Amino acid sequence: MRVDGKAFRTIWQADADGTVVVIDQTQLPFAFAERPLRSVADAAAAIRDMVVRGAPLIGVTAAYGVALALRDDSRDARLAAAIDELAGTRPTAVNLRWALERMRQAVLPLPSAQRAAKAYAEAAAIANEDVASCAAIGRHGLALLRSIAERKAGQAINVLTHCNAGWLACVDWGTALAPVYAAHEAGVPVHVYVDETRPRGQGALLTAFELGAHGVPYTVVADNAGGHLMQHGNVDICIVGSDRTTATGDVANKIGTYLKALAARDNDVPFYAALPFSTIDWSMGDGVREVPIEERSPREVTHVRGRGADGRLADVEIVAPGSRVKNPGFDVTPARLVTGIITERGIAAASREGLRLLYPEQGRA
Amino acid sequence: MRVDGKAFRTIWQADADGTVVVIDQTQLPFAFAERPLRSVADAAAAIRDMVVRGAPLIGVTAAYGVALALRDDSRDARLAAAIDELAGTRPTAVNLRWALERMRQAVLPLPSAQRAAKAYAEAAAIANEDVASCAAIGRHGLALLRSIAERKAGQAINVLTHCNAGWLACVDWGTALAPVYAAHEAGVPVHVYVDETRPRGQGALLTAFELGAHGVPYTVVADNAGGHLMQHGNVDICIVGSDRTTATGDVANKIGTYLKALAARDNDVPFYAALPFSTIDWSMGDGVREVPIEERSPREVTHVRGRGADGRLADVEIVAPGSRVKNPGFDVTPARLVTGIITERGIAAASREGLRLLYPEQGRA
Repeated sequence: MRVDGKAFRTIWQADADGTVVVIDQTQLPFAFAERPLRSVADAAAAIRDMVVRGAPLIGVTAAYGVALALRDDSRDARLAAAIDELAGTRPTAVNLRWALERMRQAVLPLPSAQRAAKAYAEAAAIANEDVASCAAIGRHGLALLRSIAERKAGQAINVLTHCNAGWLACVDWGTALAPVYAAHEAGVPVHVYVDETRPRGQGALLTAFELGAHGVPYTVVADNAGGHLMQHGNVDICIVGSDRTTATGDVANKIGTYLKALAARDNDVPFYAALPFSTIDWSMGDGVREVPIEERSPREVTHVRGRGADGRLADVEIVAPGSRVKNPGFDVTPARLVTGIITERGIAAASREGLRLLYPEQGRA
Repeated sequence: MRVDGKAFRTIWQADADGTVVVIDQTQLPFAFAERPLRSVADAAAAIRDMVVRGAPLIGVTAAYGVALALRDDSRDARLAAAIDELAGTRPTAVNLRWALERMRQAVLPLPSAQRAAKAYAEAAAIANEDVASCAAIGRHGLALLRSIAERKAGQAINVLTHCNAGWLACVDWGTALAPVYAAHEAGVPVHVYVDETRPRGQGALLTAFELGAHGVPYTVVADNAGGHLMQHGNVDICIVGSDRTTATGDVANKIGTYLKALAARDNDVPFYAALPFSTIDWSMGDGVREVPIEERSPREVTHVRGRGADGRLADVEIVAPGSRVKNPGFDVTPARLVTGIITERGIAAASREGLRLLYPEQGRA
């Protein structure tokens, strides 16, 4: 996607020497800075310190981290150590372990001298496959947005989204925002209501930044405002991402997603989740009972980081001192509230049957 | 209610000389400071600058403002000028105009020499009536909480509330929190989940402060968390306040209330609004269509004030620069989602019939 008119991915190989570059997301939206990764330690730190975040991007960064390690030393012990170091950065990320295992299998059979080149090629393949998957989600979502556009007589389609499931969470395009970018590119007028997404503010910081940088019209709202907007006909469709979706179509996503799905249902607004196949957990049937919900640090609620009057980032305390805090990171939207699931293969009904139609190779439960 | 073990109201007459004192709510929760009001200008500034807030407290502060004016000069012109000055501070506050009109009618018929004393007495009466009304809401709500406690086998009742409808918004007790305080005083174990209440953070700042200061157990959560809590059985009852309630039981309250009512309904959690008679707008029948929703400053969303590492309050920017922002201050929860309305006369069904049973003197629509 574009920033100041220039096309970017979130991660790329910078030179023939093998240096990898990422966008430093800890500085967004107040500064747009590139950060070189020159070693596996750099890659691990980038993941751990959330210089990069979003499950697909974490996986690709870890893959390049393996390549960086093998560039210096391509022996078995080095490969194993690099994978261990990278796997320990974000213990709950499913994509991270999937990408590392794929890298191991790609390079381990090869003679040592060929491993580094293969590792770079495999990391690039993972990145390109993610881009292709997100682009396909965009195409399928675009068809949906076009059908809404037909009723709008040239007015912009109003999409509401929660958190950041855009290109900054992936390599390009994004998941929930892929249909939005596809519509924008196709000349279908689209406007996005961006939930702030407390406590970490990924909507106000990242989604707002990437939509603005690419030129898509958007409006930031407090998380509390979505119900009111839907009551008054200001939202045509909700599209969110997902951190894990069950085989039955229950959608785990950033905390607060469920509340928007309830408001969508109460106001007859279609509610979609957009996600690649790798997000579907075929082993789970009841999301509310089974999906483990990460309890995150109270400090995310009690303090917020922002840009002060002096232009520098600072943390301020915004909760009565001494307060007990509970900070669940995700919630689960039951399939009955989900109109459909947009994947790289098409749009599925949010049900076991609907998902099986798209993924017939998945075994029966 | 108590702060550091000492009983407080939000406003009181400090001495025989007529000075009025309020708690400076702009400094809460980081400092607890009293602020003397020595003139009508002081009172008007306190309302305008939100040193005091909450409809009932604004009304009482305005009433004392009239008394402060008449202490210096009790002629007709002075009375009229004081009322004009005070009425202009918060143009949308219904209680403010009601209190000023009551003050005018109380003092205007009297000879000039008797007016100041009468004004102080009338302001005190308004304050005391508010306390009595809130205490009655507390008694009726307590009966409801006792019935829930019977099922909890000694475990604390978990109440979820939104924004601040506690004693800091009134003179004492509060509306939504009055039943909580009544239960706490009666030895019924109660714990409150406090929504942060973005964008202004009244829950995290004021509700958390007042519950903590009085010794009621509570937990602050992001506004996004309430649905997840209810899905997992962590909330026994929701109680919120109201800024305006229609004759049919539609409840206008701080933005985000509607989302919690939806989650309550989806999880069979009872959802109550607590409010005095003066909040009911007998002229309105359809809250979503008719209640005017104030659009507030974008800066409430883009910036947040908090305590920095140096201990001083500072504003930081927390939204991508250049973002368009929409900031509706309130939303409307349709009566169909409201289990009941707790007033000073008892608990009504959220319907025209239910409210008429409690207020038979109100004319038919």
